[in-house]
Amino acid sequence: MMYQAIGSSDIQFFQSIVGSPFVLTDADLLNRYGRDETEDLLYCPDAVVLPSEAGQISRILAYCSERRIPVTPRGAGTGLSGGALPVFGGLVLSTERMNRILFIDERNFQVTTEPGVITEVLQETVKQKGLFYPPDPASRGSCFIGGNIAENSGGPRAVKYGVVKDYVLNLEVVLPSGNIIWTGASVLKNATGYNLTQLMVGSEGTLGIVTRIVLRLLPHPRHDMLMLVPFHSAAQACEAVNAIFLEGIIPSAAEFMERDAARLSLQLTPSSIALDEQAEAFLLLETDGNDPELLFRDMEKIHAVVQRYAVGETLLAETADQKAALWKLRRSIGEAVRRHSVYKEEDTVVPRAELPVLLDGVKAIGRRYGFRSVCYGHAGDGNLHVNILKEQLSDAQWNELLPRAIKEIFELCVRLGGTISGEHGIGWVQKPYLSIAFNPIQMDLMKKIKHVFDPAGILNPGKIFD
Amino acid sequence: MMYQAIGSSDIQFFQSIVGSPFVLTDADLLNRYGRDETEDLLYCPDAVVLPSEAGQISRILAYCSERRIPVTPRGAGTGLSGGALPVFGGLVLSTERMNRILFIDERNFQVTTEPGVITEVLQETVKQKGLFYPPDPASRGSCFIGGNIAENSGGPRAVKYGVVKDYVLNLEVVLPSGNIIWTGASVLKNATGYNLTQLMVGSEGTLGIVTRIVLRLLPHPRHDMLMLVPFHSAAQACEAVNAIFLEGIIPSAAEFMERDAARLSLQLTPSSIALDEQAEAFLLLETDGNDPELLFRDMEKIHAVVQRYAVGETLLAETADQKAALWKLRRSIGEAVRRHSVYKEEDTVVPRAELPVLLDGVKAIGRRYGFRSVCYGHAGDGNLHVNILKEQLSDAQWNELLPRAIKEIFELCVRLGGTISGEHGIGWVQKPYLSIAFNPIQMDLMKKIKHVFDPAGILNPGKIFD
Repeated sequence: MMYQAIGSSDIQFFQSIVGSPFVLTDADLLNRYGRDETEDLLYCPDAVVLPSEAGQISRILAYCSERRIPVTPRGAGTGLSGGALPVFGGLVLSTERMNRILFIDERNFQVTTEPGVITEVLQETVKQKGLFYPPDPASRGSCFIGGNIAENSGGPRAVKYGVVKDYVLNLEVVLPSGNIIWTGASVLKNATGYNLTQLMVGSEGTLGIVTRIVLRLLPHPRHDMLMLVPFHSAAQACEAVNAIFLEGIIPSAAEFMERDAARLSLQLTPSSIALDEQAEAFLLLETDGNDPELLFRDMEKIHAVVQRYAVGETLLAETADQKAALWKLRRSIGEAVRRHSVYKEEDTVVPRAELPVLLDGVKAIGRRYGFRSVCYGHAGDGNLHVNILKEQLSDAQWNELLPRAIKEIFELCVRLGGTISGEHGIGWVQKPYLSIAFNPIQMDLMKKIKHVFDPAGILNPGKIFD
Repeated sequence: MMYQAIGSSDIQFFQSIVGSPFVLTDADLLNRYGRDETEDLLYCPDAVVLPSEAGQISRILAYCSERRIPVTPRGAGTGLSGGALPVFGGLVLSTERMNRILFIDERNFQVTTEPGVITEVLQETVKQKGLFYPPDPASRGSCFIGGNIAENSGGPRAVKYGVVKDYVLNLEVVLPSGNIIWTGASVLKNATGYNLTQLMVGSEGTLGIVTRIVLRLLPHPRHDMLMLVPFHSAAQACEAVNAIFLEGIIPSAAEFMERDAARLSLQLTPSSIALDEQAEAFLLLETDGNDPELLFRDMEKIHAVVQRYAVGETLLAETADQKAALWKLRRSIGEAVRRHSVYKEEDTVVPRAELPVLLDGVKAIGRRYGFRSVCYGHAGDGNLHVNILKEQLSDAQWNELLPRAIKEIFELCVRLGGTISGEHGIGWVQKPYLSIAFNPIQMDLMKKIKHVFDPAGILNPGKIFD
């Protein structure tokens, strides 16, 4: 696919649509929009455009389709698979100005929002009305809801409440042609035509640009309890998660942290938490609901289950501050790993009960290739973030061995019934591995669907597949 | 699109694939496979084929694609939108012999099944392992799980537990080309490529034939409570449903029945239930969970909410028999209406709080066109089944007025933020109204997606759209 570079007449056109202040061409700014949170990658766009509404995006996409100018949609740039990187240059289209929560429908437990709203802001705003939007990626304090939809994000609460796709009722989308559609209807049940809504969720900005989002909400649970359990064996920590489910309890979070994950995080953001010295891994376990007694009983049952394994002293958070400290410990791991070493993060996912096998396999692969890994993630979903550390490896070793090791890890995931990304997406950096998850027939279907939506191939080119 | 009729050489080919006993050409049998439960429609196929596994279906579809022989997939034939009717003749492909539950994964709360398993059989089988598959269409005693996936079925429990799409993890699908694919992976979180699984769910057998299904399951709730509440006003019954949700309670069923719906049903299947003479409508309200005290408290809260409205004496089911009788009352309505009069059922859906407006609107349209309607359905989801009765109307009136009235009802749904089918699908009989829900741009996307999967247009032709 040949693309056109952006020229001065194109810039003038974009300025005429969104206003001059909202077309960025300054080198410093282009640099900033040339990165996301994926490793150390940089791909500078030719220009950045900051539209304020769907009509502007419509005219921009129609124009770029006609001229084959690549358009890379961007939310907050917190992605971990390079989905927002303009790898072919061209235009970055940021939704940052489209940051209004448009309507909280308290009667129907729905919210209609623009894509550039920070996920935590959305959650806190609906919470004030007693409503609950559960999906909460670790970056929820900075990521946009639009990006969450592009990647079908999850987070700790997914284990009980599901992922983003389970909350999206309806989307307003600007197609590459410039046409604006709604993908469905704002209802809980829908058997009317193909599910364009679910096709759009997780499509990583390759099929259209989402401009309005209707989410279903739940009544906010009134109480929660949180417990940190240190395990003397990482494999046993994974096994314990499954044992909890087999007791018929669905915790609202079942997070796994290897010793090093927790330690690095605590170094980055010290707190009053004292980590058990003998622990090889930790589980962070939460229950929530409206009845404190019931939560307490569930926590007691969970406590009884974990006692079957070799564990240290469990820490039940007594105060809101303790809860916040424990969640901070968990949520800061990604950042702590990033600061510790050059690294590569893989977002592996398998059926929950296979997690101990996956963890063992990852460690064995690491021993064979000579790297250390720090693993953590959403054990209740079988979703393990594997952070491979460069540390003492030479650049040559790193560049030569890493792709082979990753391939082996992903092949193991697929053998265990899993796949190669649970919540981070394929984007740019996982693309070389997609053929591990999909055969040519599946790939062909997806490419043809892409062509239906984007015949000129201008929208987020180079992502997911070529 | 021109199609080929089936000739004797085609029959021989089908016999060579599935064996002679499993190719049906007897006129009586063709008649049986020419109907489903949609009104009184009959479209006879040229032949019926009963494959036993995906490989056979693969060869049949490849053959029919090459020769442009229409293939209409069929489950149990319980559909209400004519999805299984071979409207262009050709081949009916029934999955009735593919009726094995292949694997209950008790460690991962998953079940892998063939499509021809009766939904209730699947539910009861996994229940014996303490597991729960919630979606329960009224026809669950006879419908197939494969058909439920084709239509994205719901049922009473959808209000708390979601619909079929919320339980489908992965599907083995035979494409019209004959290629066999899995649509995803058997995991709870997946951000790997486009969501082909969700594209397949609800596609009414127009994109591929599902041959294996992986469903996620839940721990089975240990207790439930059921209550019948008579209301002096149907609109107030709808309003009360919303008021229950606004108290933060999510019942596991919130079913609405107009007086006539309940009465017709009780006539068909008499029981010990005494219906309040003054009631204009009834709500059937269920709570479920593991803690009987909590359920009881929720039921008390629900009882307090409904007391704000003009209600008769509530009936709390004391025994399993009473529960069964109440559920039978609800589940037999469809059959009771069918026996009462020629009728036409519309599967309207709106945001929950708009249900009173929809009900009022339906009655006003009925008065204007001179027909009576019997309404019932899943009030918690805003999903109202509107049964328009022919009764004393002449055939000319019926044929001329009905499409206009239906159009008005559907336009009202869309104005209220809803759409034209909640769980029955578009199939054959709702196709004329699809343009009320979708504009030409949306339709064009769906048609092009159809073409990606089925370039020869042989699979369930004439359904959803032309």
